[in-house]
Amino acid sequence: MEKLTVIKVGGKIVEDDATLAQLLGDFANVEGKKVLVHGGGRSATKIAAQLGIESQMVGGRRITDIETLKVVTMVYGGLVNKNIVAKLQAQGINALGLTGADMNVMLSHKRPVKDVDYGFVGDVDKCDGLMLSKLISEGIVPVMAPLTHDGQGNMLNTNADTIAGETAKALAPYYDVTLIYCFEKAGVLADENDDESVIPHIGEEDFKRLVEEGVIQGGMIPKIENSLSAVRAGVRRVIITKADAIDGQRGTCIE
Amino acid sequence: MEKLTVIKVGGKIVEDDATLAQLLGDFANVEGKKVLVHGGGRSATKIAAQLGIESQMVGGRRITDIETLKVVTMVYGGLVNKNIVAKLQAQGINALGLTGADMNVMLSHKRPVKDVDYGFVGDVDKCDGLMLSKLISEGIVPVMAPLTHDGQGNMLNTNADTIAGETAKALAPYYDVTLIYCFEKAGVLADENDDESVIPHIGEEDFKRLVEEGVIQGGMIPKIENSLSAVRAGVRRVIITKADAIDGQRGTCIE
Repeated sequence: MEKLTVIKVGGKIVEDDATLAQLLGDFANVEGKKVLVHGGGRSATKIAAQLGIESQMVGGRRITDIETLKVVTMVYGGLVNKNIVAKLQAQGINALGLTGADMNVMLSHKRPVKDVDYGFVGDVDKCDGLMLSKLISEGIVPVMAPLTHDGQGNMLNTNADTIAGETAKALAPYYDVTLIYCFEKAGVLADENDDESVIPHIGEEDFKRLVEEGVIQGGMIPKIENSLSAVRAGVRRVIITKADAIDGQRGTCIE
Repeated sequence: MEKLTVIKVGGKIVEDDATLAQLLGDFANVEGKKVLVHGGGRSATKIAAQLGIESQMVGGRRITDIETLKVVTMVYGGLVNKNIVAKLQAQGINALGLTGADMNVMLSHKRPVKDVDYGFVGDVDKCDGLMLSKLISEGIVPVMAPLTHDGQGNMLNTNADTIAGETAKALAPYYDVTLIYCFEKAGVLADENDDESVIPHIGEEDFKRLVEEGVIQGGMIPKIENSLSAVRAGVRRVIITKADAIDGQRGTCIE
């Protein structure tokens, strides 16, 4: 099968002109078919504040009331997404900005209220890999904003890591998929204070052991659990790395 | 050739929940292939004001400085566009929101400064009718925001009437195209104070005569000139009507 790379980059990188330019140059050089998934939380927080809307976060997740939903729809789906699309077009990459509502590529449901009411936040039910694969086969590069819809007319704010994971899984029947998560560190670290201590490879057994030993903890646990679940669902490998290594040559490889 | 209808609706209709719901219901009932082009100026003005950005208009056109460009990119490409797309999906219409940057469907250049510096406003050079026709043939309904790009990484604010006209012309080689402009009046009026005085049909000769007689004047002259130019470029007919008649059964038919 042909190779395809799904690259997820956080808001911090795409919201600064200099780091964005670097990233898009690197992205343009990634060989083969590709998909970009982006965040945008910092811009959303900033514009919400300018509009007098307070951003409430619980465990790193944004509480999305109706006014905040409008802000993230504007910022993720408009400002951040179209800026990236226009800049990729300038590099000769035929980018297409998408939310989950566009061509119904990602359907979700509003997260049920348990301990926390996250508001208009979507948990993904279905990603249309066939439609995405058709576009990709035509040379189009999807640029996906962290927004989905519920099929009943409402947009829903959706975690960008989840969008990337679901996209990678949905494309696995059509391509040999590598999923790359860019974050602040160079990979999963054996010692969180030592950036040189990147663990090069983690499999199912390694993960269990590293969690038992307390090497992997906190927010890294669900990240690796999601990565392993993507691999079980047919994704070739997941690489956790820094945005300066989106070619996947460095970082932690989960497979 | 198969019939296709390009419908342009202004900001006023798409920005109010009640009129939008009515419009989208009517749009869903339009038979055959279709494209929706929307404005959003009122929301842009409102959000710009909330962000402390003053909206400057010259001759009904927005002066688009760099901060205003960010606002229109957010509002047209994000808030308004995705709201429409999600609501059309809820009606079973496979909508895809597009700006000119997406798949490079509409390329423009920044308007040269003459008497007025309009800022980041685009004059359209090229619309990719082939790409649009491929999507449409797959059952996709493009929903186009009034934004283009310059191919050099910049989004540009672009008049929605122009987007609709260029789209209709670019699709004319592939479809039998009717272009419908919805505005405040029921059509081109013989007496501007009498809403019942709709002129049912205007051709090239009629237009010359009506302008000479002073019946058609002001902003209606370029609107009809653009319509006649679309017809000369292969569009079957242009209908100027009110948003409650997007089936094109009433209004002024220019052909």
